[in-house]
Amino acid sequence: MISKPSMTSSSLSPPEKSTFKRQVFHGTFIHCKTLTELEILHDTYVFVDEYGVIVKILSGDGVGAGGPKDLREHVGELGWDTDVDGEGGAFEYVGSSKDEHGKHGEERFFFPGFIDTHIHAPQFPNSGLFGSSTLLNWLNTYTFPLEASLSALPKAHAIYSRVIQRTLSHGTTTAAYYATIHVESTNLLADLCLQKGQRALVGRCCMDSDSGANPDYYRDDDSAQSLERTKKCISHCENIDPDRKLITPILTPRFAPSCTPQLMSSLGEIAVQKDLPIQTHISENRSEIEWVKELFSDCDSYTHVYDKYSCLTPKTILAHAVHIGEDEAALIKERGSGIAHCPVSNSALTSGMARVRWMIDRGLNVGLGTDVSGGFSASVLAAAREASCVSRCVASGIGGSENTNGKERDTLSVPEVLYLATRGGAKVVGMQDKIGGFEVGKVWDAQLIGLGKPLMHLNGEGEWEGQEESHEGEVSQTGPVDIFGWENWDEKVAKWVFNGDDRNTMKVWVNGRLVHQRRN
Amino acid sequence: MISKPSMTSSSLSPPEKSTFKRQVFHGTFIHCKTLTELEILHDTYVFVDEYGVIVKILSGDGVGAGGPKDLREHVGELGWDTDVDGEGGAFEYVGSSKDEHGKHGEERFFFPGFIDTHIHAPQFPNSGLFGSSTLLNWLNTYTFPLEASLSALPKAHAIYSRVIQRTLSHGTTTAAYYATIHVESTNLLADLCLQKGQRALVGRCCMDSDSGANPDYYRDDDSAQSLERTKKCISHCENIDPDRKLITPILTPRFAPSCTPQLMSSLGEIAVQKDLPIQTHISENRSEIEWVKELFSDCDSYTHVYDKYSCLTPKTILAHAVHIGEDEAALIKERGSGIAHCPVSNSALTSGMARVRWMIDRGLNVGLGTDVSGGFSASVLAAAREASCVSRCVASGIGGSENTNGKERDTLSVPEVLYLATRGGAKVVGMQDKIGGFEVGKVWDAQLIGLGKPLMHLNGEGEWEGQEESHEGEVSQTGPVDIFGWENWDEKVAKWVFNGDDRNTMKVWVNGRLVHQRRN
Repeated sequence: MISKPSMTSSSLSPPEKSTFKRQVFHGTFIHCKTLTELEILHDTYVFVDEYGVIVKILSGDGVGAGGPKDLREHVGELGWDTDVDGEGGAFEYVGSSKDEHGKHGEERFFFPGFIDTHIHAPQFPNSGLFGSSTLLNWLNTYTFPLEASLSALPKAHAIYSRVIQRTLSHGTTTAAYYATIHVESTNLLADLCLQKGQRALVGRCCMDSDSGANPDYYRDDDSAQSLERTKKCISHCENIDPDRKLITPILTPRFAPSCTPQLMSSLGEIAVQKDLPIQTHISENRSEIEWVKELFSDCDSYTHVYDKYSCLTPKTILAHAVHIGEDEAALIKERGSGIAHCPVSNSALTSGMARVRWMIDRGLNVGLGTDVSGGFSASVLAAAREASCVSRCVASGIGGSENTNGKERDTLSVPEVLYLATRGGAKVVGMQDKIGGFEVGKVWDAQLIGLGKPLMHLNGEGEWEGQEESHEGEVSQTGPVDIFGWENWDEKVAKWVFNGDDRNTMKVWVNGRLVHQRRN
Repeated sequence: MISKPSMTSSSLSPPEKSTFKRQVFHGTFIHCKTLTELEILHDTYVFVDEYGVIVKILSGDGVGAGGPKDLREHVGELGWDTDVDGEGGAFEYVGSSKDEHGKHGEERFFFPGFIDTHIHAPQFPNSGLFGSSTLLNWLNTYTFPLEASLSALPKAHAIYSRVIQRTLSHGTTTAAYYATIHVESTNLLADLCLQKGQRALVGRCCMDSDSGANPDYYRDDDSAQSLERTKKCISHCENIDPDRKLITPILTPRFAPSCTPQLMSSLGEIAVQKDLPIQTHISENRSEIEWVKELFSDCDSYTHVYDKYSCLTPKTILAHAVHIGEDEAALIKERGSGIAHCPVSNSALTSGMARVRWMIDRGLNVGLGTDVSGGFSASVLAAAREASCVSRCVASGIGGSENTNGKERDTLSVPEVLYLATRGGAKVVGMQDKIGGFEVGKVWDAQLIGLGKPLMHLNGEGEWEGQEESHEGEVSQTGPVDIFGWENWDEKVAKWVFNGDDRNTMKVWVNGRLVHQRRN
């Protein structure tokens, strides 16, 4: 971790721009060009200014064979000093490979940072703990007691520090966080995100209903109190990061059964007044849906509840949407709200299998959420992997569909799950102009992925053989991906998606700042 | 890795028993008592003799508080020398924790080694590569070309070395391997398993049919050639490990469409004559099932094909069985054959979701298989995790069942998926008397699991707070599991199952021999 080990939390300010150097990144860059297509750019230079913004991209032929010499010319055209990487250098050069052009160098590439569109920071210690529970009993058994305990700031500090470090180490550069109902610890979460350099939407959980959804020991007394507390959190975020460079407050009505109509309507008003995003849950589990139908019997559907109370905006993140119907999809599309698809959580809590292809076909914006700790993994890469697996379960049906071929297009490809994890998520959090891909004008929110050295090579007779025997013993020291040497880049990316983990995430930047680096 | 880096392969012999010390293992031991119940034994001693066999287990009260002194008495009762861990010591003491009784020591426990009941060693380099293919086109696009190329021994050597190292590093102490059709490289796989110390069933793929299932460039010419080649592989295994201490040859008719009736019948005869196990695939994918129906129109079902041609024995491993019907389950039960459940593969190849609870209810023996590379992960722990997730998808149905509650028992618990990974698998490979749990008379096939140090502690005021700040920076250096300090042992095990990986597998033993050790 790069961040300073200070315990002070509320007096932190973001690093001044002057502490950042201009940077030139060089190597292989991969991002999603479209939903279905990866763009893989080799020998490419990306120029990032002192504000963390990409100002120039030069790919392949544009650079010429000269390398450093030509690089200086390009840097000069930007009006930058051309002293590359010198002690008092005007910019820093970051190559994607240690052994430049080395025959057996490690396979590395830059990839956009991941966007986690749905994660409950205080639930992180419960990752992996859910037994055989489903949503409503899971909340009461596992979730509310833990969340309530984060009123204690030392506990909140340790847990929030860890979840930020963990998610950064998994390449999550932007996270839409639910905190707890507590003002101070919610503000602490915002402070820690700013300190550690993670882009975050931070929301105090609003839950004022006496419907039975909220336990007596953990709820807002009424809508007035809930709003007052929420405004304190908004003010804090405005105070520590007035331009929302990293931290954006987000209005967080927990889910319909937790909230009174008055509360939801008021939050909807604030969203318009202050141009703020909203996040909530929708249609996760059948019992929950039945309950919402009872509680809001005047509404046609779960989606219509949020629409009636002004919570369905172009900046609303709806988590799950496992069971929404055609009319609901149409309404969500009309309002321009986004979906946080949380496949690990949906599997773990026996919620069901969301039909992502069906959503995409209806024009909905879809991103990925880890939904810690309904989801047991804080890794968006793991969510992408599970999104792929679940889409195949949807396609095959229980015991397999009679006509699998006809449903093959339900399956999500590697480029598609990576799109959900980056550009899709960027749309869902309302930052598609800023993050999600490598383009001039976007910020440098990125990760450097390393896949290790190839295990084999072609010998003089054109036959594949293992590297010198000493490599054999290194399985403990290498990451989880095995590159044999003959894979093309699409295959390397697929191996990363299906076998990779945080060991492959070598470095992570947000807004141009290096916020995580593996030590091995 | 502990193994010697020798390239010679066919002249290897297993280490003599005299190279092994007697060993006493001490600490926390966890294994599956029943399908639904973990047994968690603290402060327990397990005594392993020079043959790798557990000869005594002392738990809790049986040992007394004296520790080493009492230990010597117990060792004396076994007739062992009592010189604990001395230079010329008669036995070695292996504690599960570095900091014995240390307040902030790492959480560690011994667990039985995993049993992978279905894995294709030559396909390992294709892990993660399957695109949107399903079984039959996947075989032709990805699988057969790679398998065919393993006729080259240097390539086979590098790939087989890696898959054995990888699976050992994931805690797989026993694997049922498919090799290729090639005699020499299949024998090399057996040699390497013996050298590296992994318990293995090694099968040459038999595929002699001209049904169209086998490509011209990669098949046996006819049943006579297939049998001749197979016998050479059996002889080789008998030669290098006559008592089947580690290596058991296994008859491997690839799957019904690949094999002529003559071949299957002959393999069934050999199985009886030589008391050998059989492995094959069954009912993985709807198109495959339809094809089998066409090819063997005289048989009532896929299962009846294998039964008709004598391949359904108490030592038969049937991989997948995603779509088998009631009559097939009844026949499999009657014959006593086992099922290799391969959830990662079934999801990846859009094969369907096997109903494991349904199988268990019908009395079938079920174990877990990684099915590399239909499955993208070589980790049985990952297969256990996915078995849990898929069982929940089965329970919820697509978009969720109308009556989730009624299906809740379809979901597999943490103890259940660990049972499948150990005792279940032991039954499926016909070694339930030898491996799968910690009992006197079983061999010491085990792994030492480490979950790292707790992140928090109770301070003087009885409140939870983080460890000294320096711990914060270590996320890169720690494993994937976060223990906060308040978890009970069932919760620690759940965290391991859902977030653990090979970083948590500190040491692995087979037959008492240390065969893998993490270096960090």
